[in-house]
Amino acid sequence: MYAFTAPFEAPTGSPIRELFKYLAQPGMISFAGGYPASDLFDVAGLEAAAARAAQQPALCLQYGPTDGLATLKEELAKLMARRGTPCSPQDLLVTTGSQQGFDLLLRVLVAPGDTVLVEQPAYPATLQALRLQQANIVTLPVDRDGLDVEALDALLASSALPQPPKLLYTVPTFANPTGATLTRERRVALLRLAVRYRFLVVEDDPYGDLRFAGTALPSLLALTSEVPGARDWLVHFSSLSKIVAPGLRVGWTIAPAEIVRRCVVAKQTVDLCSSPWTQAIAAAYLADGALERHLPHIVAAYARKCAALCDALAAQLPDDIAFHRPDGGMFVWARLTRTQDASAYLQACIAENVMFVPGIAFYHDRHDVASLRLSFAAPGVADIETGVSRIGLALRTLEQR
Amino acid sequence: MYAFTAPFEAPTGSPIRELFKYLAQPGMISFAGGYPASDLFDVAGLEAAAARAAQQPALCLQYGPTDGLATLKEELAKLMARRGTPCSPQDLLVTTGSQQGFDLLLRVLVAPGDTVLVEQPAYPATLQALRLQQANIVTLPVDRDGLDVEALDALLASSALPQPPKLLYTVPTFANPTGATLTRERRVALLRLAVRYRFLVVEDDPYGDLRFAGTALPSLLALTSEVPGARDWLVHFSSLSKIVAPGLRVGWTIAPAEIVRRCVVAKQTVDLCSSPWTQAIAAAYLADGALERHLPHIVAAYARKCAALCDALAAQLPDDIAFHRPDGGMFVWARLTRTQDASAYLQACIAENVMFVPGIAFYHDRHDVASLRLSFAAPGVADIETGVSRIGLALRTLEQR
Repeated sequence: MYAFTAPFEAPTGSPIRELFKYLAQPGMISFAGGYPASDLFDVAGLEAAAARAAQQPALCLQYGPTDGLATLKEELAKLMARRGTPCSPQDLLVTTGSQQGFDLLLRVLVAPGDTVLVEQPAYPATLQALRLQQANIVTLPVDRDGLDVEALDALLASSALPQPPKLLYTVPTFANPTGATLTRERRVALLRLAVRYRFLVVEDDPYGDLRFAGTALPSLLALTSEVPGARDWLVHFSSLSKIVAPGLRVGWTIAPAEIVRRCVVAKQTVDLCSSPWTQAIAAAYLADGALERHLPHIVAAYARKCAALCDALAAQLPDDIAFHRPDGGMFVWARLTRTQDASAYLQACIAENVMFVPGIAFYHDRHDVASLRLSFAAPGVADIETGVSRIGLALRTLEQR
Repeated sequence: MYAFTAPFEAPTGSPIRELFKYLAQPGMISFAGGYPASDLFDVAGLEAAAARAAQQPALCLQYGPTDGLATLKEELAKLMARRGTPCSPQDLLVTTGSQQGFDLLLRVLVAPGDTVLVEQPAYPATLQALRLQQANIVTLPVDRDGLDVEALDALLASSALPQPPKLLYTVPTFANPTGATLTRERRVALLRLAVRYRFLVVEDDPYGDLRFAGTALPSLLALTSEVPGARDWLVHFSSLSKIVAPGLRVGWTIAPAEIVRRCVVAKQTVDLCSSPWTQAIAAAYLADGALERHLPHIVAAYARKCAALCDALAAQLPDDIAFHRPDGGMFVWARLTRTQDASAYLQACIAENVMFVPGIAFYHDRHDVASLRLSFAAPGVADIETGVSRIGLALRTLEQR
């Protein structure tokens, strides 16, 4: 009856959201979520920040600048400086979560048919945004050290691409879904390729502060200082969603000024501004040093949860599930070694009241049906152990069929 | 250096935002803003609502449903019922301001080249959103009774359009910028045309509750019950920005379920969800009945301000400026009767420390350079009177050149 645009003729929603209905099943233990742990939110710190923000009611309640509240931009620039990547407030755009930053970037840079490179497996909302933008999606393999930059080099040197890529999307630190972290050598090599072949590297970094093992690596943004010209080809997204709270909807984009300016024009018509109220709360929270005080509690809890999950998997299912222990973030990426179809396996698990996300949700092509993602962020340690037992039970059930 | 998409090759920001720099001029009195009055916000009521919302921290701080918090959707459905337009929560999508609602609608329905009808003069962000979507914009005239539906009828019956229109955008009640309100007869006629020619009528209704004179008229959404089939062709936007506070960034879309479903899929990739924290505050505010208690204060203040502006214009500039007294909203639309160029006039006014928006900001084509928009929402009554005196001074200066 209505003539929808091509991407919305028969649109598909997020494959992960399709699983939400099972969350209501009584007693369900879920490793499926991509949400941070609600019980680790710094409720007292955020209440105090909200009280301070409320001292400037007109600032909170009126429209705000499209590029973000000045006070928040200053605090975010200070946070980036503490992360070793100084930036000026002009290079920084506050968005409604970093997801909006990616959407704005696609609008100003990617026309239908433009080639975009994506590591695979990848964050499903990224794949979905690219599909809705009708981009020509070209996937790149990853391994336990992140994006295979040698494969990228070979691809770029070949004539396999129909056109030069506009951009490459990657989560180089504690990736979703693989948990992998790109090595320093690969980071530098990636930046060199970007300069050489003139494409934008989009570094999505929501998890970088959630490190509980190994040695911290500089972000791609930080490493641009070592590769001449690379800063012109780097767009960096970050977010308070995983380190403070998603409900603030505070993400930010750091990009060359010419790109930021266009993203601001796009945002003027997209939503005029993100909520100045939650921006003011976020600014007060950061100014108070609350992030530095509270974040170690979240990281320590995730360390315990990750260890509980990996230890239980190794102890109970040593021959059935292969995985790699991540050094941070929220996810363990695993592979069924004997049962091959993680989707069928999920159904058996749901019957045992435990859930995960089948890996196919993270693929655009060349699906690995035996893969699956387990998030340890939300469940408690006891539930994690019970959950892995149930995964084992489901595996026995499936094998006996 | 970067290959931007066509609409962003040389993007222009909002013409009104270009005027913002003059707001910092000491002593400036501005009739230029489109913002509601900051000193009329219900600070106490919103603080109380925030305190109630804070009793459910996990709800405020975690990701929320893409289509909006269930509690807020229920309160908005009740508000719509009080306005005489019952709707079910399934037909309702919460957005980051109603501006996001329009953006999502364009994404799912308007492809580059598609014909979109717009009343003219119109809200600049609407024109900008249509340009960025590369729509074929066709403007329709308005008079003091709003959109000229007879002209629309004639256009649709002719073969002047290159293709059937996808949608028609209108602010039928206290329009921005004209302040005009569409008559009941025209409303019904417009809905009949929508059914007959199968295009969506987009009713943007941020100001409908701000009536301080005349008799309330049913919205187009309400009148769909009188025109068989019209509900299928009506999309209604509303917002808390002008009746509570823009900083909440709470708008909503009411549309046929098939359209809402696609807008939700688009929103999943656009920003995942609007801030659940400000949504929870908005829900608490509405549930408490605070809107009904406080809104009369805002409306009474706007009535006084509008009277002060119109009385002063009529008393001091009877032969120079023609205008029509609106029955509500925030804007007086005026026309210079002797000096013809409102943009040159604005420069003379800025020298006298008073501002307005030249009418050309609201035109896509066939600009009326003698028109201008005066907002009475933000300045106080004394400033309004001083401001009109300054407008008079600037006019004398200009005439003496």
